Amino acid sequence: MDKLKVTVWNENEKAFEPYPRGINHAIAGFLRESGEFNIREALQTQPEHGLTEEVLSGTDVLVYWAHSHHHEMDDAIVERIQRSVLGGMGLILLHSAHASKIFSRLMGTDTLRLRWRDVGELERVWCIEPSHPITQGVPEYFDIPHSEMYGENFQIPAPDELLFLSWYEGGEVFRSGCTFKRGCGKIFFFSPGHETFPIYHMPEVQRIITNSVKWAAPIYRPDIVTGNTPDFIL
Amino acid sequence: MDKLKVTVWNENEKAFEPYPRGINHAIAGFLRESGEFNIREALQTQPEHGLTEEVLSGTDVLVYWAHSHHHEMDDAIVERIQRSVLGGMGLILLHSAHASKIFSRLMGTDTLRLRWRDVGELERVWCIEPSHPITQGVPEYFDIPHSEMYGENFQIPAPDELLFLSWYEGGEVFRSGCTFKRGCGKIFFFSPGHETFPIYHMPEVQRIITNSVKWAAPIYRPDIVTGNTPDFIL
Amino acid sequence: MDKLKVTVWNENEKAFEPYPRGINHAIAGFLRESGEFNIREALQTQPEHGLTEEVLSGTDVLVYWAHSHHHEMDDAIVERIQRSVLGGMGLILLHSAHASKIFSRLMGTDTLRLRWRDVGELERVWCIEPSHPITQGVPEYFDIPHSEMYGENFQIPAPDELLFLSWYEGGEVFRSGCTFKRGCGKIFFFSPGHETFPIYHMPEVQRIITNSVKWAAPIYRPDIVTGNTPDFIL
Amino acid sequence: MDKLKVTVWNENEKAFEPYPRGINHAIAGFLRESGEFNIREALQTQPEHGLTEEVLSGTDVLVYWAHSHHHEMDDAIVERIQRSVLGGMGLILLHSAHASKIFSRLMGTDTLRLRWRDVGELERVWCIEPSHPITQGVPEYFDIPHSEMYGENFQIPAPDELLFLSWYEGGEVFRSGCTFKRGCGKIFFFSPGHETFPIYHMPEVQRIITNSVKWAAPIYRPDIVTGNTPDFIL
Repeated sequence: MDKLKVTVWNENEKAFEPYPRGINHAIAGFLRESGEFNIREALQTQPEHGLTEEVLSGTDVLVYWAHSHHHEMDDAIVERIQRSVLGGMGLILLHSAHASKIFSRLMGTDTLRLRWRDVGELERVWCIEPSHPITQGVPEYFDIPHSEMYGENFQIPAPDELLFLSWYEGGEVFRSGCTFKRGCGKIFFFSPGHETFPIYHMPEVQRIITNSVKWAAPIYRPDIVTGNTPDFIL
Repeated sequence: MDKLKVTVWNENEKAFEPYPRGINHAIAGFLRESGEFNIREALQTQPEHGLTEEVLSGTDVLVYWAHSHHHEMDDAIVERIQRSVLGGMGLILLHSAHASKIFSRLMGTDTLRLRWRDVGELERVWCIEPSHPITQGVPEYFDIPHSEMYGENFQIPAPDELLFLSWYEGGEVFRSGCTFKRGCGKIFFFSPGHETFPIYHMPEVQRIITNSVKWAAPIYRPDIVTGNTPDFIL
Repeated sequence: MDKLKVTVWNENEKAFEPYPRGINHAIAGFLRESGEFNIREALQTQPEHGLTEEVLSGTDVLVYWAHSHHHEMDDAIVERIQRSVLGGMGLILLHSAHASKIFSRLMGTDTLRLRWRDVGELERVWCIEPSHPITQGVPEYFDIPHSEMYGENFQIPAPDELLFLSWYEGGEVFRSGCTFKRGCGKIFFFSPGHETFPIYHMPEVQRIITNSVKWAAPIYRPDIVTGNTPDFIL
Repeated sequence: MDKLKVTVWNENEKAFEPYPRGINHAIAGFLRESGEFNIREALQTQPEHGLTEEVLSGTDVLVYWAHSHHHEMDDAIVERIQRSVLGGMGLILLHSAHASKIFSRLMGTDTLRLRWRDVGELERVWCIEPSHPITQGVPEYFDIPHSEMYGENFQIPAPDELLFLSWYEGGEVFRSGCTFKRGCGKIFFFSPGHETFPIYHMPEVQRIITNSVKWAAPIYRPDIVTGNTPDFIL
């Protein structure tokens, strides 16, 4: 079986203290080390935001991190990502990708809407779905010593599966790991991952993201017929 | 308690044989006769498609029938409807409203995609959810002697509740009654209702639509806080 | 419309400090004060555990609190309750009713399985479903100053609707308000309510339970046909 | 990776015309031919119904066909199967296993309740979930020329995933392929498979069952902690 073709996408290559070569490099790095994927990187700052028709048609799973430049995304490219997801491409949305145009478009809601606080508090991530490919090898709970808080009420449709719930030192809870299907595409949203904390260096987080990429692999069904079906098919 | 404020919306006032004064008049008519609603009518051909800010802010539930002019809808008005739904307005989508921009936008999928055939065949509507406000007083199944076929595969997210399944003489099945929540708004899609058949004159169909309007009444929760929550709330 | 017939059930009339006349009396009391229900009380210590065929057939919604005597429940009575639920009776399961035979039987899982700790810590209850009859009039969150902790992983099937999530001072989270349908019956599980804390005196908790009783009212559908259907029904 | 350990279970070895060596032999046969499983067979007529603790603890996925001897199942063995499922064992329920004690027990409903007719009519199976491991390689729809009808209303909880809908010549529809999770165990119910028709010889049916066995493979999570957690885990 060929390796899964994974595109790791980010706004830009900006370096943060825990990620001196950029977050994209960090995420692509641990995925590459697993030896299970063919990894390509892409950036919003590239032509067509790095997501040309050719790139998307060669992508099995798109891993998407974004924070501050959502509004600069060209709507035509957002629609192109949506078509790819509906056609079977997996989509892993990390951290503030909750506020991305593509997530809102696939959900139909203002996924921007949630509480947040950035004081570096403790986040505890609880796994509530014990029998799921994404939670394999993940402990019952694990702690992120310093995290940005994302809290309820989070405006998303009821997830197809709710896998993780987060507890915050400051008093909030959050649906921090959710799956959705849209068309033939599988979507996983996972909220931990603020840029100023070394969260993507944590083995539990790397495990979850790696598992989710495998889980989101496309299952092609090219034979669906829609449209006019003039005669009885009996 | 004040009566629910219901806006019945259509493309235009075009008359079809079973609906000499237009479909909108027929739907508004049986809803009005129930005595339970304050009914207003609106048309796509009116300024702002009949859905001004004032109309929408005065609407508890929007009943939406459309067939042939989806592409002429102004995207800004579609977005306005979406905001109203997320804020709590109920939305009843009838028949080919499956292909409307507003349904696609709220679902995140190509809700246009389904099989269809217009030869006037028998449709049998089965109720599969015995304990739901929308199915109260509806028989276990009922027959529509002549109907347009809408068949699977229908590209929608998994419904929150699946209430009706349709069987067609020509060999297809369809998820013909589905509920969804998006934000604070309740959505009900019900597929029967082709313009050349007297389907909206059937008591079962009138009952289902009347029930659904009551079910979709807004439940306001004005106190949700989102955004920055700088301090611990302990 | 006749008032809903509600049976409030408990193990016994044991008095606890916040409930000098027993928990059942407290719950029946605030429901009675709403003026919307006909309230009857029943106890496990009565013949047939207070749930004779006559009592159950005269009950629209059963409110069930239990803690320490689950194993003493006669299986035949448990099955009788189950049949009533499948036939349309609503069931409100409070606090340690999670460990009751009837909840396990309706869920198919070991609903006994969860974490717990009884040190009187702070519980914060978050409402995550803004558009539901049970959450009407309930604030976005409210605090229970002293509560027993019930924490994940809780062995339940994925709820039909997840309404409340609880945060605990000691570091856990819990799905504290969940709805399920089984047959024609609606079920609501709500976890707060330890006997040594005055939780059922809190207006938010009274509001949630009162709302849930109304929500769980039966919707009768006596016309369902099952079994052999020898001829084509065309 | 070791092969999945699959136990194929049946009431007895009774031969029917399309299955001269028994249905169990037919199902075990095509699973064995795939080369992907270690297959063991077991029968209700054996001691402990062929499902000793040893057999179940050595079973990854149990494939269960049954029709006429449900009431003869020892409740203690049914409970043993349930415990295995909650602990992670996959369970594939075929045809009239809908009426088995184990299915009712895991669902909490009278799964016996549905319409049925045995006149050898046409059943058409529609796949409505295009992106699922169980539907891989399965056409959009396929026909079973002669089948027993199982029709709605079928008393099951809302499935976690609805994969197949069946259309019957005689006018009914049915949720013929459904998934459920209970505890750590995955459950798939697939209705086609009456003993007097050669349905298990059809490549589409063999593909679906083979896929489902792989999908239902256990994902062990031995580290879940429940029970008293006396100290804060902070």
